[in-house]
Amino acid sequence: MKVAANLLLRHAREVITCAGRLPAGAAKADFHPGPLGLIADGAVAIADDRIVAVGRTADVERAVSLTAGASVVDVGDAVLAPGLVDAHTHALFAGDRAAEFSLRVQGAGYAEIAAKGGGIAASVKALRAAGDEALRAALAKRLDAMARFGTTTVEVKTGYALETGHELRSLKIARSLGERVVPTFLGLHAVPPEMRGAGDGRARYLSTVAGKMLDAVLREGDARFIDAYVDGPGFSVAECAPTLERAKSLGLRARLHVGQFEDVGGAEFAAALGAASADHLEHVSDEGLRALAAAGVTAVLLPGAAFSLGQPMPDARRMRALGVAVALATDCNPGTSHCDALPWMAAFGVRQMGLSTVEAWFAITATAAGCLDLPDRGRLAVGARADVAVLDLPGWEALPYVLGSPRALATVTGGVLREWG
Amino acid sequence: MKVAANLLLRHAREVITCAGRLPAGAAKADFHPGPLGLIADGAVAIADDRIVAVGRTADVERAVSLTAGASVVDVGDAVLAPGLVDAHTHALFAGDRAAEFSLRVQGAGYAEIAAKGGGIAASVKALRAAGDEALRAALAKRLDAMARFGTTTVEVKTGYALETGHELRSLKIARSLGERVVPTFLGLHAVPPEMRGAGDGRARYLSTVAGKMLDAVLREGDARFIDAYVDGPGFSVAECAPTLERAKSLGLRARLHVGQFEDVGGAEFAAALGAASADHLEHVSDEGLRALAAAGVTAVLLPGAAFSLGQPMPDARRMRALGVAVALATDCNPGTSHCDALPWMAAFGVRQMGLSTVEAWFAITATAAGCLDLPDRGRLAVGARADVAVLDLPGWEALPYVLGSPRALATVTGGVLREWG
Repeated sequence: MKVAANLLLRHAREVITCAGRLPAGAAKADFHPGPLGLIADGAVAIADDRIVAVGRTADVERAVSLTAGASVVDVGDAVLAPGLVDAHTHALFAGDRAAEFSLRVQGAGYAEIAAKGGGIAASVKALRAAGDEALRAALAKRLDAMARFGTTTVEVKTGYALETGHELRSLKIARSLGERVVPTFLGLHAVPPEMRGAGDGRARYLSTVAGKMLDAVLREGDARFIDAYVDGPGFSVAECAPTLERAKSLGLRARLHVGQFEDVGGAEFAAALGAASADHLEHVSDEGLRALAAAGVTAVLLPGAAFSLGQPMPDARRMRALGVAVALATDCNPGTSHCDALPWMAAFGVRQMGLSTVEAWFAITATAAGCLDLPDRGRLAVGARADVAVLDLPGWEALPYVLGSPRALATVTGGVLREWG
Repeated sequence: MKVAANLLLRHAREVITCAGRLPAGAAKADFHPGPLGLIADGAVAIADDRIVAVGRTADVERAVSLTAGASVVDVGDAVLAPGLVDAHTHALFAGDRAAEFSLRVQGAGYAEIAAKGGGIAASVKALRAAGDEALRAALAKRLDAMARFGTTTVEVKTGYALETGHELRSLKIARSLGERVVPTFLGLHAVPPEMRGAGDGRARYLSTVAGKMLDAVLREGDARFIDAYVDGPGFSVAECAPTLERAKSLGLRARLHVGQFEDVGGAEFAAALGAASADHLEHVSDEGLRALAAAGVTAVLLPGAAFSLGQPMPDARRMRALGVAVALATDCNPGTSHCDALPWMAAFGVRQMGLSTVEAWFAITATAAGCLDLPDRGRLAVGARADVAVLDLPGWEALPYVLGSPRALATVTGGVLREWG
C-alpha cells in the first residue's frame, strides 16, 4: 500500500534528519554524527503539511504514489535539513537603531544612549507609532530574510509595546503570520518610558502586567508563552514572580531572559517555574545550570547579542557537560542583534562556545523546536510537519564551516515550497 | 548638453559614494560621515561600463538623456553603494575541508591535521585533479554568492597548484572570469607536498618559483600581482626576497601574507618592496606598522580567518592611529575562512577591531580598490567603472549593525545589471 504525496524532494546529496537522540551531558569529543540520522542520496515526501516518507530516494519513490500535479524537485548538490527553528527573537519592531549602534561601538554607555532617546524606549516609541500593516509587512520581510538562511519557525516576542492595547495588537500581528511564528508575551521587558522616573510607576506597571494585561493576553489567546527580563537592568525574581506564577497557574508557560548582564537567580527561578527555556545565560552559576538540567529547562544561547555587545560568549560546553539542553537563536532585535542568519549562530557556537557540529545542528533544529513545545518540528521524520530547508552545503560538517552561506536554495514551510533563487 | 545613459538607478534612500577622502591617522572619534559623500534621494547614471552622473535624482535626471531601451530602476528603500571590493581571497579551489574544520574546532593541531592529509596539501591535491570547467564553475558560483552580498571585484590568488603548469592554468581560469577578478600569483604559498621532507626539495622549489615559474607567469601575462606567505609556517624574508625582488624589477607588484602567526619581519619587507598591501597582520610591531604607513602599503585585514582559528583580531585601530590605510577582506579559502560575506567583515571590523563605521565602508570599497591599483573602482563618481551595489540597508550606519543581511537586491558590474531576487 503506497502513501500519497504531492511534493517530493529527491536525490539530495545528503539528508540530515536530526531524527536521532543527542546524548545528554555529552563530552565534546563525542562527535559521532549518528544522532543526525544521515541519509545519502536521500528524499523527503510530503502530503499537504506533513512528511509522509524519508529515506533513500529509491526507497521513498517505491513507498509513495505521487498525486496528479505533484511537484518533484531534484535537490542535486544541496542537502536537505529540517527547516531551522529560531527560538528567541524580538523580530516585531519598527524602524532601526543603527545610529545607537554607532554610538555604542564608539564607547557610549547605556546611560548616554538612553539620554539620547535610544535603547528599548526608542523601539517602544516607533512600534506604538507604526500602523498594523507596516508592522506586519516589516515582520513578514524579516521572516523571508530568515527563510533565505533556511529558517521556517520563528519565536517572536512582544515587549516594544508595554501597554495593554499595543501588547495585544503585537501578539495579534505576530499570530497573523500563521504557524511560522510562535508568539510570546513579554510585558516584563522594561518599565514603559512614561512610567519611569520618580513615583510608583514601576510598581504600578508590574501590577498592571500581573493583572489586567495578563488577563487580556489570556482572554485573546494569541500568546503561546510568557517571557520576562530577569536581570540586573531588567526585573528581579521577586518582581517577576507574581506575573509568572499566575501565568503558570492559568496555563501559560514561561521562557525567560536570564543572566545576560548579571546572575540574579534567574536560572533557579526558571527551573522552579518549570519554564520551557532560560535564554542568554552569559552569567550563570553551576548551581543554576544544574537546576536547569534537573528541571529539563533548555538553555537558549544568543551569540549575536554577545558579539554586538562585546560580552564573553555563554559557555555552551559547560552547559552540555552539566546535562543542559542547548539551543541557539538569533535574538533578532533592533538594539543588540539585528540578525536574520541562524546558521551564523552555529558558526559562533562551534568556534567560540564549545559546541560540536552535531550539537550545533540540534541547537537550531530539534532542540530549539522542543523548547517551543513543537515536537513535530526540527526533525525530518514521518508525521512531522513539512518544514524543510534545502541548503547549499556540501554536507553536515559544513554547517559552521561556511561563513555567509549556507544559503537556502528553497524552503518548505507547512508543505508550501518557496524557491529563493 | 546632456550626457547619454543606458542605465539609471534612481530614488535611492541614500547614495553612499565613498568619493571623499578618509583622513589618514584618524582617531576613532573622528566619526564624521563626510568622506562617505552621502546623497539623499540619490541616483547613479551609467553609460556602458562607466558612471556618467551621480547626485540627487532630480539633478541626475536633468543631466542625462536616456538612450532608447535604457533601463530605469527605482531603488526605493534600499541604498546605493560602490560595488564592494574583496582584496584578498583564495577563491579558486576545488572541494571543501569541512571535515578538517571539525577536527580543528575539536582541538586537533596543525600537525595532526596534516598527518590526516588535511591543510593546504588537501587543496593542492583537489585542485590538480579538477578539470578546467569544474574549477571555473566553482569560482563563478563563489563570485555570484559574493555578489549577493554586494561584492563586484574579487582578488583571487593561485597557490593551490604549486607547479608551473597548474599555476599558469589557475591564473588563466581566474582571468577568464573577466574584470571582476584580479588574479594574483602565489607560488610561494607553501612547498608542494611532493617536495617536502628530507633533501633539498624546499630549496629547489624556491629556485623554481624565482626562475622558471616566474618567467612563465610573466610571459603569459595573466597575473596582476605576486604574493608570498611571509610567516613562521610559511617562508622567511630571505627565502622570498629573490622571487619578489626579481618580480619587482620585471614590473610585477607584490601583495604579501604577513604576520598571521608570527612576526618574521614581513611588514618591513613589504614596505621596502613598495608592496601594494600587507595582509593578515595579526602579529606586527609598531615599527612594522610605521614602515607600512611611510611606504603607503595598505593593511588588508582578514577577520574571518582570525575568527575561525580563534586568534586575536588584528588591531585596526592601532594601524589607523599610526597612519596605515586599512582594507578588510574575506580571505575566502577552504581551510580557515570559507566566507563569501564581505559585509560581515565590516561587522567584525567595527565590533572587534576598533574601526568606525565610516572606516569600515572605505575598507571594503575605495581603500580595497586602491590597493588593487584600481582607482576607478570602490567609489561612485563620474568616470568610475560602473560597479554598484543595491543594498537592502536603511542607511550607511547600518553596514556593521545588521548581521546576515545586507543582502544585495541587485548589483551592477561593469555596467551589467543583475537582480538577485
